Amino acid sequence: MSDISSGDHDASIRPGEKSVALPDHYDAQVYFIGRIRTPWTDRGACPRRGDPQHGPVCILDIDPRWAEALTGIGENANLQVLYWMDQARRDLVVQTPRHDGSVVGTFALRSPVRPNPIASSIVTLLEVDGTRLKVRGLDCLDGTPMVDLKPEHPRG
Amino acid sequence: MSDISSGDHDASIRPGEKSVALPDHYDAQVYFIGRIRTPWTDRGACPRRGDPQHGPVCILDIDPRWAEALTGIGENANLQVLYWMDQARRDLVVQTPRHDGSVVGTFALRSPVRPNPIASSIVTLLEVDGTRLKVRGLDCLDGTPMVDLKPEHPRG
Repeated sequence: MSDISSGDHDASIRPGEKSVALPDHYDAQVYFIGRIRTPWTDRGACPRRGDPQHGPVCILDIDPRWAEALTGIGENANLQVLYWMDQARRDLVVQTPRHDGSVVGTFALRSPVRPNPIASSIVTLLEVDGTRLKVRGLDCLDGTPMVDLKPEHPRG
Repeated sequence: MSDISSGDHDASIRPGEKSVALPDHYDAQVYFIGRIRTPWTDRGACPRRGDPQHGPVCILDIDPRWAEALTGIGENANLQVLYWMDQARRDLVVQTPRHDGSVVGTFALRSPVRPNPIASSIVTLLEVDGTRLKVRGLDCLDGTPMVDLKPEHPRG
């Protein structure tokens, strides 16, 4: 944890990266609606991006409070999952993702390091078992909190 | 505001719809990173979905705090915009979107009424002018707060 140039934890900052002061207040609040179960327990093991066809089966474990909100979800072949990258720092405006010195703005990246660490993935829905949904296409750590779940496309 | 069966404001609930008690605490907090400028000032006028090819030009007005986070964003033809549907109620588990009595779970809909009212749209990027981005493809009210902005696809 003492090596600030390390990429191994999200509090790190590399040469060329820049932070700004965060706003002095938040503007809105979120509820975690459940947790994502994946095979990956450390960040280094996570794939760079999920594969909705060939990736491993992962579980969306929805809080029982929201059980009825899943009514009819099985009709969708693909879902959009929004989740909260809760280990990421939020104050970087430019980042050096390629380790080659090139500097890219946070909003020009899909990095988890961003003002609001909300990730979005499209997954293939395999099975609905009560409040547990089997899907393919995720790339996040086991235990990642979920903030939303919706069909990829609006109802026709 | 007295007609609770009206669809004209988001506090309404229709026959067949059902709410649950919200959790007694929030789990995380968001910063608004800017506002979306669109031609629509009341909900009834908003299109059902945005059109990234032929929809009207809208503006993503980013807070100057995050100006440097836009570095390199002009290289992307399409962006994903996450925004906060701040007028929506958050406690409905089933909804009747078609007005025909059919009941659908909140997570099987892209309705703004959901535990965390985060909408996601893919837009075409037309022009970057400082912290103002001209885009097509939105369908939200003028003044809607933005929570994230990122390339549609990861960098190759």
